[in-house]
Formats: sequence, structure tokens, C-alpha cells
Amino acid sequence: MRLVSFQSSDGPKLGAFVDDKVLDLQATYQAAVTDDALPALLSGMIAFLESGQRGFDAATHAINVAAENPEKAVWSTDPLLSPIPNPKKLLLLAGNYASHIEEGGGVALSQLETTPRVFMKPPTTTIVAHEEAIIIPPNGVFTDWEAEIGIVIGKRGKFISADEAYDYVAGYTAVNDVSERELKVKDSRVDRDGDEWFDWLNGKWFDTFAPVGPCLTTKDEIPDPGTLRISCRVNGETKQDANTGHMIFDCAQIVEFTSTLVTLEPGDIISTGTPAGVGHPDQKLVDGDVVEVEIEKIGVLRNPVVQG
Amino acid sequence: MRLVSFQSSDGPKLGAFVDDKVLDLQATYQAAVTDDALPALLSGMIAFLESGQRGFDAATHAINVAAENPEKAVWSTDPLLSPIPNPKKLLLLAGNYASHIEEGGGVALSQLETTPRVFMKPPTTTIVAHEEAIIIPPNGVFTDWEAEIGIVIGKRGKFISADEAYDYVAGYTAVNDVSERELKVKDSRVDRDGDEWFDWLNGKWFDTFAPVGPCLTTKDEIPDPGTLRISCRVNGETKQDANTGHMIFDCAQIVEFTSTLVTLEPGDIISTGTPAGVGHPDQKLVDGDVVEVEIEKIGVLRNPVVQG
Repeated sequence: MRLVSFQSSDGPKLGAFVDDKVLDLQATYQAAVTDDALPALLSGMIAFLESGQRGFDAATHAINVAAENPEKAVWSTDPLLSPIPNPKKLLLLAGNYASHIEEGGGVALSQLETTPRVFMKPPTTTIVAHEEAIIIPPNGVFTDWEAEIGIVIGKRGKFISADEAYDYVAGYTAVNDVSERELKVKDSRVDRDGDEWFDWLNGKWFDTFAPVGPCLTTKDEIPDPGTLRISCRVNGETKQDANTGHMIFDCAQIVEFTSTLVTLEPGDIISTGTPAGVGHPDQKLVDGDVVEVEIEKIGVLRNPVVQG
Repeated sequence: MRLVSFQSSDGPKLGAFVDDKVLDLQATYQAAVTDDALPALLSGMIAFLESGQRGFDAATHAINVAAENPEKAVWSTDPLLSPIPNPKKLLLLAGNYASHIEEGGGVALSQLETTPRVFMKPPTTTIVAHEEAIIIPPNGVFTDWEAEIGIVIGKRGKFISADEAYDYVAGYTAVNDVSERELKVKDSRVDRDGDEWFDWLNGKWFDTFAPVGPCLTTKDEIPDPGTLRISCRVNGETKQDANTGHMIFDCAQIVEFTSTLVTLEPGDIISTGTPAGVGHPDQKLVDGDVVEVEIEKIGVLRNPVVQG
């Protein structure tokens, strides 16, 4: 299933892409199953994820209803939201593709010699949906893109081993880890050890700097998330083109490591780092650009760029 | 007002310390104002903060009712929650007291020569209430305390100047920025530039590592947050004893700087850094310890320590 969230007059609702249309899962379920109360587990993405297999079965039923009894299908033309509108955590990896580390002048170590580097963005102010604008901040100097596949957590867990990691994964989405690489700070600042790290971190946090979407593709459709083509285009021109198989740490290892630091909760997103093709000073994002992140089996996450 | 959140069978509710008791603000308001519908703006801390002056006036009214018509007061003996049970952001400053920077072997620069260093903790898994346990993680080696005053945001804003910063502040709380300073990572890791910094950051994120409370003291009771005694005791022994006037960047400047990075939202907490008295390897927290952060006009935030 390729699940989405969409805006309704009652707040965010859960839908599924069926061909190119959005099926309202709760309304379709209700139209078909007359003896049932409002299926709360289809009321929104977090409730769905928290309900586990029951939610999955109910969503599958609604999709089957739409195929078999089209007159009972309820379609939505409301604007898409980010598939997980309010995740509790938005975790991201820095430097998880050798090609990206090397283009930045670094040395990529094998996974035996290193550990994942995990940071966070503030979810409520950074996450935007497919087609929503990325806003270049007035104090930005060099804003660009980072195409990444995001793991969406389906089950609460801690100290999860790589072997059991996929039990805790609901599916995958596309993330654009938009980054301001030359944050304008005070001219009078005297260099101190660590300044560059805090500038780097803070340059990830600007409003709208985390497009996520267009959908969450459930893991049953992606048996191995390490085999997917991932690319990024700006105004139609390809800037990144790689495969998730090139990650230093794969998705299972990332879940394992991250869960040694924090309890993972349903709806949490772990974005897994970006391949080469970013951070080149002659390729800044400017007002009017359109950025597309495309990942096989997930789709295209497209966002216009606006100068703030 | 010294506002709290407490757990009820209907979920988190808003209360106020009156002497040492907790007044249920919504229930008291309802008992007194019979012609009024349920005052939604007293339903919980975020709703209260978002309602601005109207919420403040309603809470004041309920407290006055309790004083003048004690028979109408509704008291709670339910367990306290953290005053803001689910903030959207938990932002914290590193190195904002010269005494703390110098005890760590660093050089403290004046505010003219430097900028605040801001990082985040994941709020849902780190925040615990007064009297809740701090859990030392199994992969922790050296966990200790950091007493800090936290600014609580009352109004959404961005690019806020220091001059108008207090218009965006609801009040202040006590924060213990619990820190794991020697995170156990893979033995086989080869040192890379930045490893130390990511370990430092990740060592801040463990579950229960952000006691916040016991209350939010509204800004009308703290006209100048830069004049408060702040201390930390472990098992009754004083470990930190300073004054918030020793901060390098004061609360208004911190709001100004932080709001150049992110949109601040009602309920967001910005913890403002810790004074000297932390990070001494012969003073680790161990199972059975009790840590108390005390800040003038806010109170004592006490947490037992448990080995996880």
C-alpha cells in the first residue's frame, strides 16, 4: 500500500494511492462495513501505525472494497499532507554514502570502522508535504537538497537488533533533507572548536527544510529497502542518481544503532543519508526552482522553492 | 502563578500550586462560573498557552475563586506531570556559563565574540516529571546532571528581537539536562573528525534525560529571569550553586538567536545552559541517587536515579 495523509475539514485523514487517485480509507471502510462503528484505527496515520496488523487489515479491506464495489469507494481531492503529519521524532543520518562523504573532501570508512551519525530536525516546523514550498531563509546563503529514503517506524522499541529491525518498520518514504550550508552568523565571532558543527546542525533546522512524502509505502511492497534507485532533479536536471544499496549502514543497522540511543515510537522517521550530488557551491537553490526526489516504489516528492 | 500539569483519568489537566496544594483550574472555574461552557482554554497547558491573555485571566479567576470561596475549590492529589507534557520542541544551550566552559578546559568568550550553541532533545522520550526516575542507560558510562532554567514560549514567533523577546515568553521552569558523557560506542571505531561531537550530542538523548518541572512560573512573577539563584544537589550535597545572572547570553538574547533558526511555538522549551559543577568523573550518578535542581521562584525539581 502507498499510504498518504490528506487535509479534510475534520483535520488530517488517512488515504491510499489507488492508481493516481486518493482513496479515503475510513470513509470507504464505513460505507462498506455497515455493522461497524467508526474504525478509529483508520482515523489518521499515527492511530493506523499504532494499531499494527489490525490497521493494515482494515486498510487492505477498504482498498479491496474500492476495487470490487467501486460505488462504495470514497475518493478525496483534498490537498496532500506529509504522510506522517506530526511525527514525534525526525531523525536523520549524516554521511551514510561513501560517494557523498568523498565529494565533501572526507574519507569514507567501512561500517566496521565507524558508527552512524544521527541528528534531529524539529518536526512541526520543518516537515512540509509534496508540492509545498521550501522557503530559503533570509539568513541563508547556500541552501540545497539531499535526497534520502526515510524509514517509518511502526512499533515502539528500544535496543532492537538488526535481525529483528524490520518487525519495527512500517514502511518507507522519501525525504529531502534540505540544508543551509553557510549559515550567516555574527561577523564578530571568534572561531572556537565546535563552531562548525553547531552551524552545520542549525543549518538543518530552518522552517520547511524537511519535505517528506508523497506517501508511505508499506514494507510488504519493499522486501529489501537496499535495492532502490534514488534520484534528485532540480528543474528537471538530474543532480543525484544512486541506489540505496550504496549506503554504508543499511536500514536494519540504522534501526539497531538508533534504538540504542532513543526509544523508537510509531510514526518516527529515520532518514538514512544522501548520496553524492549535493553541496556544490555553483548549484544553490534559488527562488522559482523545483526540486524532485524520486525513489523507486515510493514515487516523486516535488517541492517548489521560494525565497523567504 | 506556578502552573502545573497533572494526570487525571481524562488525560493531562492544568493546575496551579496554591501553597503546596494543586488546584484543578478547569474544575474550579466551572464550579464558580455556572453560566459558562467548559473553559477549553484551561483544558491543558498547550491550550492555555495558545489562548494568551484570556487563559491567563481565566486561571487567575479560578485561583481567586479558591481564595474567596474555598468551598468551590477543586483540589487534585493526582501525580504531577511535567508542566508541558508534550512540547513541540525541547531546545537547549551548550556552554552558556563561563564557569562551566572553563571547568571543562575550554575558553569562555564574551557574547560579542561568540554565538549561542543550540541543540535539541527528543521531547516525548526524554521529558519526565518531578519525582519521576532518571534511568541510567545500560550503554552509559558516565551520566550526570546539569541544572538549568528553561524558557517556556507563550506565543508563536520568528526573527524576534531581544527587545520584544519577553512578549513571546510565557514563563520559566527548571530543567535537568541529564548527560551521558562517555557514550559506549563500537570498540573498533577509527577516530574521525566530528566523532566526539556526535557522541556528545547523542549522549543527551537517552530516555528520561530531561526532567522538567515542577511547575511553570509565569513571567509576571519573574520580571527579570537573570537574577535567580540556581543550584543542584545530589543526595543533599550541593554540586552547583550559581545565579542566572552569570549566563553569557541572557534569556532575551537566547530567544532572539533561537528564533533566527526556527519558528518558536507555544509550549516550546529553551533550556539556557548550566553553570559550573558538572562533568567531574568522580561524581557520576549511580542507582539510588536523588538529584534536586532548585531555582528561586520556581521551586525544587527532584528525581531519583535508577540503573536501567
